[in-house]
Amino acid sequence: MARVIVDVMLKPEILDPQGRAIARALPRLGFSGVSAVRQGKRFEVELEGPADEAALGEVRKMAETLLANTVIEDYTVRVEG
Amino acid sequence: MARVIVDVMLKPEILDPQGRAIARALPRLGFSGVSAVRQGKRFEVELEGPADEAALGEVRKMAETLLANTVIEDYTVRVEG
Repeated sequence: MARVIVDVMLKPEILDPQGRAIARALPRLGFSGVSAVRQGKRFEVELEGPADEAALGEVRKMAETLLANTVIEDYTVRVEG
Repeated sequence: MARVIVDVMLKPEILDPQGRAIARALPRLGFSGVSAVRQGKRFEVELEGPADEAALGEVRKMAETLLANTVIEDYTVRVEG
């Protein structure tokens, strides 16, 4: 069993209202020194078998078709560890 | 300028309906070999200064009080790179 992480973030050119709201709330809450925040999604995918190239290819296809909206989001796939 | 990543995931003992829905949809969509999926949040925090211990302490406080609900969620803080 292996764990693969898929991170999905809005593309840099897409406005991120959630991240922006957090960044703007920080000074009000006493935090300084943060110039920007972006919020995205993290998926932990547990594989039944090893994280070999075939399995990672499947996870990439999964990210492409199901986990990310590639019109507005980028994703990265990596084996945890 | 440094980028710090905060990952927020539901604690292992908390049921994750979103992740479960994804895991159950996968076979229907032609994907096999996945035993479980958990969905969480990823925050990219851009610091104005370097990611030294003081700054990381601030980000941890931020995660604790604002980004994660520590009753049901765990978080990890790490410098990207």
